[in-house]
Amino acid sequence: MTLDDLSQRLREFADARDWQRYHTPKNLAMALSGEVGELTALFQWLTPEESARWQDAPDFAANVRDELADVTIYLVRLADVLGVDLLDVAKTKLDRNEIRFPAPRD
Amino acid sequence: MTLDDLSQRLREFADARDWQRYHTPKNLAMALSGEVGELTALFQWLTPEESARWQDAPDFAANVRDELADVTIYLVRLADVLGVDLLDVAKTKLDRNEIRFPAPRD
Amino acid sequence: MTLDDLSQRLREFADARDWQRYHTPKNLAMALSGEVGELTALFQWLTPEESARWQDAPDFAANVRDELADVTIYLVRLADVLGVDLLDVAKTKLDRNEIRFPAPRD
Amino acid sequence: MTLDDLSQRLREFADARDWQRYHTPKNLAMALSGEVGELTALFQWLTPEESARWQDAPDFAANVRDELADVTIYLVRLADVLGVDLLDVAKTKLDRNEIRFPAPRD
Repeated sequence: MTLDDLSQRLREFADARDWQRYHTPKNLAMALSGEVGELTALFQWLTPEESARWQDAPDFAANVRDELADVTIYLVRLADVLGVDLLDVAKTKLDRNEIRFPAPRD
Repeated sequence: MTLDDLSQRLREFADARDWQRYHTPKNLAMALSGEVGELTALFQWLTPEESARWQDAPDFAANVRDELADVTIYLVRLADVLGVDLLDVAKTKLDRNEIRFPAPRD
Repeated sequence: MTLDDLSQRLREFADARDWQRYHTPKNLAMALSGEVGELTALFQWLTPEESARWQDAPDFAANVRDELADVTIYLVRLADVLGVDLLDVAKTKLDRNEIRFPAPRD
Repeated sequence: MTLDDLSQRLREFADARDWQRYHTPKNLAMALSGEVGELTALFQWLTPEESARWQDAPDFAANVRDELADVTIYLVRLADVLGVDLLDVAKTKLDRNEIRFPAPRD
């Protein structure tokens, strides 16, 4: 599955349930924000080192995967509603960041 | 560019600047959360209808694209550090959602 | 109860459970962020007008109160750990905002 | 200044600028979410230990105070618009938490 496939499947999912009317950019930004809040909460009491060992506890790892899925779903849905290509804007930004933050030479 | 290409380019970007040590899951979840906050803030005073006409003002539209880029970058970087395939977990979740929220038949 | 009373009660609550070691500024900022995400999620699919009628559904209203409580608790706890007086910094900011955004005269 | 004084001053500030119409619960939840994102971002690359030494750099400390002010302002404004007493709901929640999470006896 590509990002475009996911985008299309999410569009069909929303259409089949008549949910497009809820899927305004404003509402989807809020939904994304809520899911990122849940993802952040998973790591809140862990040290950075503990957070790197997130796979040690299977239940915790399943929660992380589940929240990552929700964040991805709302981000891709928002981008589709906005008509923005996420890979394209990310590439543009990264091109700019490579100039703004030059890598040290050896 | 595919999601995998972006992921790889972000990894090289971090490596070249010796930033991997900052890129723990905990820290990247916070960075993602900060960027989503900025994206949400763009839409905060707009009505849902106004948010759908986000392209009317070119400066505003550029800000939206820029924040979407930042959100995408940190989400893809976080997934790479976690070793999670975003499309894969999103697909799994969507399969489950299709059962949880059955579409009405015509 | 005043804000100072709440602050003190939260400190005693954390001390009695030996939770101070988790309550670093970084961790508490994440916890605050997670709770604000839950609060935001409550309003995500409502129109602004519907959100103003939040008390119509008692269960929904109870959830709103509950999330506001959690947000308040983590904000007050974070401020206590930082040694910052929230009313004081808010007043300073508001004084500045009154100059930045002058009210129109009649 | 008490929390009630701040609440009243924020109400007058909004009234004088005719901003009440923007201050729906939905919009204010988004504004709160945006400010918490900025606060979280300040701590994102710090270790928990470094975050506890936040006052070492005066500019950084000023930014923390400024973001805490913004978060407080939007939380208090949201509570006022909702007609919710933040200290009251926090106390109710804390009473419940003391039962849910009993402190260990010595």
